[in-house]
Amino acid sequence: MKLVCAQSDLSSNLSLVSRAVPSRPTHPVLANVLLQADAETNQVSLTGFDLSLGIRTSFNADVWQGGAIALPAKLLVDITSRLPEGEITLDDESATDSTTGEGLIVTLTPKTGQYQLRAMGSEDFPELPLIEDNTAIYLTATALIEGLRGSLFATSGDETKQVLTGVHLTVKQDTLEFAATDGHRLAVVETTNERPLEDNEQQLEVTVPARALRELERMLAHNAASEEPIALYLDQGQVIFAWQNQRLSSRTLEGQYPAYRQLIPRQFERQVTVERRQFLSTLERIAVLADQKNNIVKLTIDSAAQELTLSCEAQEMGSGRESMTAEIAGEDIEIAFNVKYLMEGLKALPSAEIQMHINQNLSPVIFTPLGGLKMTYLAMPVQLRS
Amino acid sequence: MKLVCAQSDLSSNLSLVSRAVPSRPTHPVLANVLLQADAETNQVSLTGFDLSLGIRTSFNADVWQGGAIALPAKLLVDITSRLPEGEITLDDESATDSTTGEGLIVTLTPKTGQYQLRAMGSEDFPELPLIEDNTAIYLTATALIEGLRGSLFATSGDETKQVLTGVHLTVKQDTLEFAATDGHRLAVVETTNERPLEDNEQQLEVTVPARALRELERMLAHNAASEEPIALYLDQGQVIFAWQNQRLSSRTLEGQYPAYRQLIPRQFERQVTVERRQFLSTLERIAVLADQKNNIVKLTIDSAAQELTLSCEAQEMGSGRESMTAEIAGEDIEIAFNVKYLMEGLKALPSAEIQMHINQNLSPVIFTPLGGLKMTYLAMPVQLRS
Repeated sequence: MKLVCAQSDLSSNLSLVSRAVPSRPTHPVLANVLLQADAETNQVSLTGFDLSLGIRTSFNADVWQGGAIALPAKLLVDITSRLPEGEITLDDESATDSTTGEGLIVTLTPKTGQYQLRAMGSEDFPELPLIEDNTAIYLTATALIEGLRGSLFATSGDETKQVLTGVHLTVKQDTLEFAATDGHRLAVVETTNERPLEDNEQQLEVTVPARALRELERMLAHNAASEEPIALYLDQGQVIFAWQNQRLSSRTLEGQYPAYRQLIPRQFERQVTVERRQFLSTLERIAVLADQKNNIVKLTIDSAAQELTLSCEAQEMGSGRESMTAEIAGEDIEIAFNVKYLMEGLKALPSAEIQMHINQNLSPVIFTPLGGLKMTYLAMPVQLRS
Repeated sequence: MKLVCAQSDLSSNLSLVSRAVPSRPTHPVLANVLLQADAETNQVSLTGFDLSLGIRTSFNADVWQGGAIALPAKLLVDITSRLPEGEITLDDESATDSTTGEGLIVTLTPKTGQYQLRAMGSEDFPELPLIEDNTAIYLTATALIEGLRGSLFATSGDETKQVLTGVHLTVKQDTLEFAATDGHRLAVVETTNERPLEDNEQQLEVTVPARALRELERMLAHNAASEEPIALYLDQGQVIFAWQNQRLSSRTLEGQYPAYRQLIPRQFERQVTVERRQFLSTLERIAVLADQKNNIVKLTIDSAAQELTLSCEAQEMGSGRESMTAEIAGEDIEIAFNVKYLMEGLKALPSAEIQMHINQNLSPVIFTPLGGLKMTYLAMPVQLRS
């Protein structure tokens, strides 16, 4: 294997795929990045894989001699990212007659010097899952990013919660639904498919680990300007996202996802419309006091004054109270929340104004954006200690 | 006490002084910021003090009624920094008839709401050290920043190393010398006083804790454009830096500082002049490999080729070698360093080109900037394992 490529291509692609390289690999080869060079197409592909999350990208290079090799990910990323712009030669021809000892050696030759790194054979590197059937759903990058942004934050960070550590994707005729819950709150986003499913295609549900989707979100953020749709291949056990020269695959999470739709009430006794940013920044101040106690913030809804008041009593430290105008329909009520769940939901809601839909002070409250994306955020109120 | 001030003034000054508030106070009052309001001058001063480091700043406000009170630093910083721009009223008149219970309460009233915080009496707050004698040394902010930047990095982070955790300041006729060493390397910077000492004034030496000087560096960074000189009041036991509306005081460190001058050789057998940034960026790449082993980098000085080569062998991982042109006087030599000490010194040296002054491969090596600030950096070579 011998190739010449640009430092910027090698470095940026390495940094993408190395996100899938485990920091504590269960097998030594998983600490590597698989490099495959094709002399016919002059394409180099890089793969990182932790047996669950896999990332593969490819870029153009002068491939003098094709081949494949597994290279130590961390060392290669750290050295390559520090090299100046310019051409780099990668070469494993001198593998056996190197003075450094037996085994595979790859030589990295930038303009300024030479690095020799111990490598492993490509045959030890596990295969990425294949796309077996060819029917894909297509989403724009923007729609996919919106779906992820509106759901990922509500997943559980507790690994013992299994399916709750993932986002549940439901493919429907012409929409894709993203849902996430950690047992305390629920976020649901519906985005539009680029092309509707054909009649004979099956509706499908999978739960994808949040970790893989966070990486997907990062990769798409660099790519958001692209018009090319993202292809989603969903299968029991595997999901693959593919676009341009990049693809990300992930195992799905096993187990029944909660029937979340039935948690969302359809009728409400009260409705409050409020400016989202003002609500959020006020909560951030009240949270300073709530932090000192049990994280509980009280919302007082005053229909006559058309005013929403946030307050917190942290007896040993002090108390705080702020009010803002709101459009209120329904009777006055006092209702309390964990301030963290309110803030996280408000951050994710994508509109300038939001609506709270309330029944009683201990029944689920629904937050929706006013216009734009179809998103539903459900938060459970908590008991107010008096 | 009652005053009205701008949110931006209160917030920025609180964030400055709160740097001196200990996170784990030995006495409850030290978790507070002392606020003093003067109705005659319409000045508000804030003080944070951990019994070693003290920071005091002042700003203009409408003081309706003068007074002093100790306010909970963290809560006040966190709330104030999140408030929108605008006027804030601070008030402790309602202290005793508050419904929240007995004890001091301060009321913070921004436009949007009201916060009540439990406060403490100002009489419990310890006094900052006074400036007893009036003779000061004056430095420009730029000179002081240069002195700190060129020395602070070389202090020891190990609290058991006592005086080595500080920077040693020596006041001379018309210069101020900054010195720092952790036992492995030494940095010395000489800056010019704004006004020379008068003949009858005494030369003085003190060692100031790095922690206090790092805070000073932060404060000055916001203030570097100012032409007004900084006054230094040095005393056995205390040092005070004062400028405009701000002052920082610190206890000095007790104990004899090492006689570092005698460590610096005066004669050298070899001299190497090299471009600093190239040297540093090459070291950063070689350090990736050195990190894998014992952090040792080898410098090979080739007089005939006028070339400096950096290399590292990390046998299990690989090896690296890079060369750069250098102006070399003296015979060829191989010499090894801890890569961290080389990089930190090169980062702090303030010139485009630097000179290495070398004798033998185990005697101290001196690094100096070519032109500009008077700085000396000494690093001890290490044994090359063969």
